[in-house]
Amino acid sequence: MSGSTFGKIFRMTTFGESHGPGIGVVIDGVPPRVPLTEEDVQKDLDRRRPGQSKITTQRQEDDKVEILSGVFEGMTTGAPIGMLIRNTDQRSKDYSNIKDVFRPGHADYTFFKKYGFRDYRGGGRASGRETVCRVAAGAVAKEFLDQFSVKIIAYTLSVGGIKAKTIDYSAIEQNIVRCPDMQAAEEMVQYIQKVRMDCDSVGGVVEAVVKGCPAGLGDPVFDKLNARLAYALMSIGTIRGIEFGTGFKATEMKASEHNDPFIKKGGEIHTKTNHAGGILGGISNGEDIVLRVAVKPPSSIAKEQNTVDINGQETTAVVKGRHDPCLCPRVVPVVEAMIAVTLADSLLVQRAINPESLK
Amino acid sequence: MSGSTFGKIFRMTTFGESHGPGIGVVIDGVPPRVPLTEEDVQKDLDRRRPGQSKITTQRQEDDKVEILSGVFEGMTTGAPIGMLIRNTDQRSKDYSNIKDVFRPGHADYTFFKKYGFRDYRGGGRASGRETVCRVAAGAVAKEFLDQFSVKIIAYTLSVGGIKAKTIDYSAIEQNIVRCPDMQAAEEMVQYIQKVRMDCDSVGGVVEAVVKGCPAGLGDPVFDKLNARLAYALMSIGTIRGIEFGTGFKATEMKASEHNDPFIKKGGEIHTKTNHAGGILGGISNGEDIVLRVAVKPPSSIAKEQNTVDINGQETTAVVKGRHDPCLCPRVVPVVEAMIAVTLADSLLVQRAINPESLK
Amino acid sequence: MSGSTFGKIFRMTTFGESHGPGIGVVIDGVPPRVPLTEEDVQKDLDRRRPGQSKITTQRQEDDKVEILSGVFEGMTTGAPIGMLIRNTDQRSKDYSNIKDVFRPGHADYTFFKKYGFRDYRGGGRASGRETVCRVAAGAVAKEFLDQFSVKIIAYTLSVGGIKAKTIDYSAIEQNIVRCPDMQAAEEMVQYIQKVRMDCDSVGGVVEAVVKGCPAGLGDPVFDKLNARLAYALMSIGTIRGIEFGTGFKATEMKASEHNDPFIKKGGEIHTKTNHAGGILGGISNGEDIVLRVAVKPPSSIAKEQNTVDINGQETTAVVKGRHDPCLCPRVVPVVEAMIAVTLADSLLVQRAINPESLK
Amino acid sequence: MSGSTFGKIFRMTTFGESHGPGIGVVIDGVPPRVPLTEEDVQKDLDRRRPGQSKITTQRQEDDKVEILSGVFEGMTTGAPIGMLIRNTDQRSKDYSNIKDVFRPGHADYTFFKKYGFRDYRGGGRASGRETVCRVAAGAVAKEFLDQFSVKIIAYTLSVGGIKAKTIDYSAIEQNIVRCPDMQAAEEMVQYIQKVRMDCDSVGGVVEAVVKGCPAGLGDPVFDKLNARLAYALMSIGTIRGIEFGTGFKATEMKASEHNDPFIKKGGEIHTKTNHAGGILGGISNGEDIVLRVAVKPPSSIAKEQNTVDINGQETTAVVKGRHDPCLCPRVVPVVEAMIAVTLADSLLVQRAINPESLK
Repeated sequence: MSGSTFGKIFRMTTFGESHGPGIGVVIDGVPPRVPLTEEDVQKDLDRRRPGQSKITTQRQEDDKVEILSGVFEGMTTGAPIGMLIRNTDQRSKDYSNIKDVFRPGHADYTFFKKYGFRDYRGGGRASGRETVCRVAAGAVAKEFLDQFSVKIIAYTLSVGGIKAKTIDYSAIEQNIVRCPDMQAAEEMVQYIQKVRMDCDSVGGVVEAVVKGCPAGLGDPVFDKLNARLAYALMSIGTIRGIEFGTGFKATEMKASEHNDPFIKKGGEIHTKTNHAGGILGGISNGEDIVLRVAVKPPSSIAKEQNTVDINGQETTAVVKGRHDPCLCPRVVPVVEAMIAVTLADSLLVQRAINPESLK
Repeated sequence: MSGSTFGKIFRMTTFGESHGPGIGVVIDGVPPRVPLTEEDVQKDLDRRRPGQSKITTQRQEDDKVEILSGVFEGMTTGAPIGMLIRNTDQRSKDYSNIKDVFRPGHADYTFFKKYGFRDYRGGGRASGRETVCRVAAGAVAKEFLDQFSVKIIAYTLSVGGIKAKTIDYSAIEQNIVRCPDMQAAEEMVQYIQKVRMDCDSVGGVVEAVVKGCPAGLGDPVFDKLNARLAYALMSIGTIRGIEFGTGFKATEMKASEHNDPFIKKGGEIHTKTNHAGGILGGISNGEDIVLRVAVKPPSSIAKEQNTVDINGQETTAVVKGRHDPCLCPRVVPVVEAMIAVTLADSLLVQRAINPESLK
Repeated sequence: MSGSTFGKIFRMTTFGESHGPGIGVVIDGVPPRVPLTEEDVQKDLDRRRPGQSKITTQRQEDDKVEILSGVFEGMTTGAPIGMLIRNTDQRSKDYSNIKDVFRPGHADYTFFKKYGFRDYRGGGRASGRETVCRVAAGAVAKEFLDQFSVKIIAYTLSVGGIKAKTIDYSAIEQNIVRCPDMQAAEEMVQYIQKVRMDCDSVGGVVEAVVKGCPAGLGDPVFDKLNARLAYALMSIGTIRGIEFGTGFKATEMKASEHNDPFIKKGGEIHTKTNHAGGILGGISNGEDIVLRVAVKPPSSIAKEQNTVDINGQETTAVVKGRHDPCLCPRVVPVVEAMIAVTLADSLLVQRAINPESLK
Repeated sequence: MSGSTFGKIFRMTTFGESHGPGIGVVIDGVPPRVPLTEEDVQKDLDRRRPGQSKITTQRQEDDKVEILSGVFEGMTTGAPIGMLIRNTDQRSKDYSNIKDVFRPGHADYTFFKKYGFRDYRGGGRASGRETVCRVAAGAVAKEFLDQFSVKIIAYTLSVGGIKAKTIDYSAIEQNIVRCPDMQAAEEMVQYIQKVRMDCDSVGGVVEAVVKGCPAGLGDPVFDKLNARLAYALMSIGTIRGIEFGTGFKATEMKASEHNDPFIKKGGEIHTKTNHAGGILGGISNGEDIVLRVAVKPPSSIAKEQNTVDINGQETTAVVKGRHDPCLCPRVVPVVEAMIAVTLADSLLVQRAINPESLK
């Protein structure tokens, strides 16, 4: 209820703060006999972890996962999967420079208003560190989706206005910004480094494509597949907007341009174009699901900013520490994870209602 | 589970199809002693109803609401509020021209794949008619929010690329497109009429502003207030994207531009700018909540389109009937309703956890 | 959240009070293509309806159901099924004699404390009339369970201490007390009539047996099948206790007597005895599910009772009207309905997780 | 969905098996500023732990809890509370004698049918060890309830037919069977020791009383307080029945005996008797809540029993190891915990709907 649980059948519940002993996730409702090892999970955690390149935060955290339950002889058992990731360096953290101020763009102030007290360690629960748990759960969901040949690909489409011009999936993991265009990637990296030198940070757009999603997922009214995905992705702290298919551009189009004609291809029904982004009436239609999310510039910067202290007096703040100048490369695996968890759950809901449709 | 229920404490469950005897909604979890009459509900239904102006569908439906339970002597009792709206002309509907084809942009095909049979009456449950129930529930939520002085304002910001240049709330209900700029409204109306003459339809952008929302609503992780609003609004069939505050523009900004400095104003803490759109770390901060949704061009057009029939043969289709050339004016009350229901629910969740914060 | 919704996938939401225009239920998550007509529902409503015999209340209500949605050409569509039952004589109800007092054994006082105002019409939402909706939903669940050959049988086992000595299922609907022993039934009827003459009422025990329930339903921890059934049945207003298999008698047994040995029967694994009542570790084991519920004497009696009025003064009350002297015969279909809904839901949950287990 | 989460606002999610690295619980929705330390939790874990006396299993497990999140400076923060209890001796466990057979009265067979494979380690998730997590969550709930002066007392009422004759709360923790009658306790201990010598086990009845529960908790329809408590308590593996107030005895009473007259006592409204067990119409009425649960004899006994092996052949089994001859003394804190969690949650639901009622 307080919002640390996600999903209806495939359900993850997360806990933990950036400054405590550790963070973790419990995934309930995973079908039995899905192959799963700690390595499967670790692989995605490593793509999210800090310190992975010169354009991410230079903090070093191992983020080693321990599976506590729900797996036996390399297979899920049907019991909830508990996973724990110990925090390694939280004790040394120094809060002295932010203890008495509300950092602009951070949740310090809203936590204070919500819970009625000042936790000077910063919004430990609001920290991006919480997404470790999502990535761990996403890895489990991906293993399950693999049984249905569903594949999720996410990548950085633009950074501070610099856009990828080509989409080459094979390039994505070949550059540190996770851009499908090697040349644009190079420009992005240079720009991010420049911004970092200015003690500033920058936003970008992450795009995701789902291949092989069976038709029939999602429900007609509130639980439209796009609605569930919007909820899932907008719950990532740094996301400010989401659009499907042609998205906001559809608002300038006419239906005669925007409607995707049905055609026959290889004996099967498909659409000629994919303005709808793979979802019609809230239900997947078997085409690629395509969506984009707006990633804001990370709030923590070493530049001096105007703010107010906890006594209500105006002052200035400098947020020290090693922060990300651009979150896109590390958000990519989080976006994949949230999509994976949403699809796994939607697929299980559909299997309950009409298992024939998934054959 | 099949997605006809929305909310955690303040919960609405809807039922009904466009072609059946009627549609309705049950709202559970409404606190006792909230003033409520059928007129309160009817007022908003009338703003949504078809046939209200020359730029909406010319279908005439009364949409008269009957409150079946949960209200006694003009006040809610705490029991679930059941409301029924009879369909008045569904029997006469003629499906002959679409009985055998999948209409492009419609849910015909995805319903067929999901449920395993062809309901030739069209996606009755997918019909925009279902939003009547949302508006009815929204009217109840607004009455409750009124006790906390929360006010929701939505309007058409652009139609087919034509944008409002000024925002004058008092203009909104003074023109049939519900635009806060009377001059832009005039251009929009002319454009919509031209598009209709071309047997086509067009999209637009609806913006919403919430005034007086107390700080502290929303939860830190999955149930961020923006995540819940994104889910609520993206579940409206015609919506293709959503953004908060500066939204997608934030992806081209630096943190030094985007972070909203805290200031003191009238003895209280506020932010100087509102790029965040009133939500920080997923929790309302007391500023105006600002969001925009992308409304696609309605799929039903009288132009001939390529498609496939239910035997998998390529063919063409013309969707006859009286359809909306632009949904924005009728989407405005639906957007308000979904925001109202989300805020009422979030407020009740917060009241459970920390009632002191709402005083 | 306020408790008018039951179930996880197969979900019913009820609304309505005994004194309003009508009561109804929305059932979401019903799989498509389940045969369903109004007659299927009416049949069970008639078994529950008042005025059916000389030992029930003599109120006459038709309880005619109208299906508002979710059914097309005699089959469910997958959309929520809305059903409405109009109240026919609520307007004439006379509250004058109870307007100012709290009736002993009734919810008048607790509603007053919970919601903060006096609804003198009595606990309209607490009325047994609400179970009409459960029976309607149960009829739908039974149609679905029929596809899996699951059959639910409930009957009156004892009334005021008079016990059935034989269990002959074919006798149940042959006597007005719904007892599987015709001779005991005769004694029960005479006893109930005597109690009624004394302006009093009496309780009894209802037993239920489920035949053909597949093994594997229910979950290991909180959602044990017996826990879910206990919740379902204890939510019927008149129930004061529930036990499974040997129940409270198990507390005086040793494990060597109580454990059910596994045996082979007809090539399949069964248990020799069924002390567990068909559920092991919270999961159905394929044997008959057996349970009993304690039905209290109905609170409304024409005898004068001591009580307190709404001003806190001690006084006496006589509850006029035509009330049930024993609820057992009318509780039988309600018990069946709640079991049906619980099993339908548990079966769908299991189908999501491991569809192979249901083949 | 798969049933490892309990509650609506105050929600616990458990994970872990008896044979894995550890078990744990996440409690979401705990209000901020509730005092909480590891000692508060440990105190109740110690009352549940094995090896505590000569009439419990002689296994020695420390059950030391580690709080991983949600607590700061001795107070809850509003964030989810993660707790971990490492298993200490699971590696040494020898399954050789049960690897190939289904133990009578155990969940081995039903897990096999549900999940489709044989986990020879026994029903690790079905193990009573899982209740450690419930007791940990219950300790948190008790701290919260303490703010409302709600107190829960549970005790062993009978063992194998030997009944407590007096109820002296101060005696409960003074004897190893947790019986409120010191003399009956002595008889019970002797009987349990005798049964253990016979390689057998025995059941009993545990009674619970809640003092100081505010009126108004629970909802009128499905979420009646007794229904929620029945669900909570029946989900404890060893429980076979539950009754409230006079319970099954009410089935032999008339309303004139069973209805509790309202009276005035100390200027407040009370009932003269408490046959209803503190709950009217599913809502607490301010009197003591009184309930009893039937505890079956534990299934694991060293006596030889008939059963079937995993190849479907009839055989015999002896369940070796150090097992509990009677679970009542260790079930007492589990019963308290489940009641505490249910009441904490119901109280939060009520605070959302009508906070005035709790003042």
